Amino acid sequence: MRNIKLTIRYDGTRYAGWQSQKNGRAIQDVIQDAIKGVTRERVALIGSGRTDAGVHAEAQIANFRTKSKIPLKNIRMALNSRLPRDIAVTHIEEAALKFNAQKCAKSKLYRYTIMNNDYMDPLVRHFAAKSFYKLNIGSMRKASGLLKGRHDFRSFQATDGEEKSSVRTIKDIKIEKDGDMIYIYIEANGFLYNMARNIAGTLVEVGRGKFKVSSIKEILLKRNRRSSGPTMPAKGLCMIKVRY
Amino acid sequence: MRNIKLTIRYDGTRYAGWQSQKNGRAIQDVIQDAIKGVTRERVALIGSGRTDAGVHAEAQIANFRTKSKIPLKNIRMALNSRLPRDIAVTHIEEAALKFNAQKCAKSKLYRYTIMNNDYMDPLVRHFAAKSFYKLNIGSMRKASGLLKGRHDFRSFQATDGEEKSSVRTIKDIKIEKDGDMIYIYIEANGFLYNMARNIAGTLVEVGRGKFKVSSIKEILLKRNRRSSGPTMPAKGLCMIKVRY
Repeated sequence: MRNIKLTIRYDGTRYAGWQSQKNGRAIQDVIQDAIKGVTRERVALIGSGRTDAGVHAEAQIANFRTKSKIPLKNIRMALNSRLPRDIAVTHIEEAALKFNAQKCAKSKLYRYTIMNNDYMDPLVRHFAAKSFYKLNIGSMRKASGLLKGRHDFRSFQATDGEEKSSVRTIKDIKIEKDGDMIYIYIEANGFLYNMARNIAGTLVEVGRGKFKVSSIKEILLKRNRRSSGPTMPAKGLCMIKVRY
Repeated sequence: MRNIKLTIRYDGTRYAGWQSQKNGRAIQDVIQDAIKGVTRERVALIGSGRTDAGVHAEAQIANFRTKSKIPLKNIRMALNSRLPRDIAVTHIEEAALKFNAQKCAKSKLYRYTIMNNDYMDPLVRHFAAKSFYKLNIGSMRKASGLLKGRHDFRSFQATDGEEKSSVRTIKDIKIEKDGDMIYIYIEANGFLYNMARNIAGTLVEVGRGKFKVSSIKEILLKRNRRSSGPTMPAKGLCMIKVRY
């Protein structure tokens, strides 16, 4: 038995998200079908985490077990020739049998992209959200600093996605600006449902001056979704890296 | 009468090119329709140059004359609210009445993007061509140097697009590499039909070792399309800048 670890890049625009869904095509299913085509086995592909409908990945990590003896390089080439053009396996390796892409993940890094101008750039329209308000990056950076560390992030969790504990640790959060584009990088040991998009929406409210920088402390304490900013669109979110 | 100069950004994937065509929707027509919606005038929009079906632009320049007294900023906003999401007016200004976006252009800068790996990146698949051959950037740079200056580029002109003179001046040509991506920047006083894509295809043949660097000299002298490399796909080409 081999345990195969894949690094996967995808444009999530057309999909119902990573995980198999009742409605719509899931990225996980598409890749499992491709694996079946190559190995003749119906495998369970374990992803490091779910990405929502419309969310992208530069490097999602997933693993599956197989009895196939096909060389790694050939598996990758065969998968890519079967996968649609919006999904690609960029790297393949053999992992220890105990490796589990979800359970072994120490942290995940997401990037949220905002175009801050009065038009949306046609060349990145599927990969960025927009904000027409002039955003103050300095305020956004200060506010983001208050989110670092171990907190109860219930105020940033979608109300329909409540998990046992909403305590997570944000290991790092960085905001970069390049021309009209603003990038929010969030690395955490885990993300609650919609947490990254709700943090982005809250930082936008700070950047446009609707929320004060210090309001972040109050929002965390309130443990209530209604206290934080709006959920930003899925298309601005991209999974960048998983650390093990 | 005012002469309005527009800077236009577009994803050319869905279009039959810049110029009005019998078959398919042209970018020029879409923008003219939007202008009519805003000014109530049927204007002639003059572009700096045609881009082919599937070719993109970061900054196409175009101008039109209007009797409208609507402030510039409002025209731009109104155009963007009417244009589809794959076309945007990024800048607007009033030009001298004699300004003609096509005739006054001194040079145009195009970028050709090649992904040099054994898979195509799903996130840029509409904006890059691929080459599975390992390309030697050093050879490509040497070959590109031989194209600089004033030459008869007939060997790089599509056979069905012959113009009176095929003499053009390449002011600069640069090749950059960033990870798996190779960017060929070509600035010329004018481009023959398919010239940028045929130059890119020829440089790829040099990069993979099928053509020698010195063969560029012979190709130029032959003045025959069959002597140069293949026409690279439209999607890798993007108009970057027009100089006046």
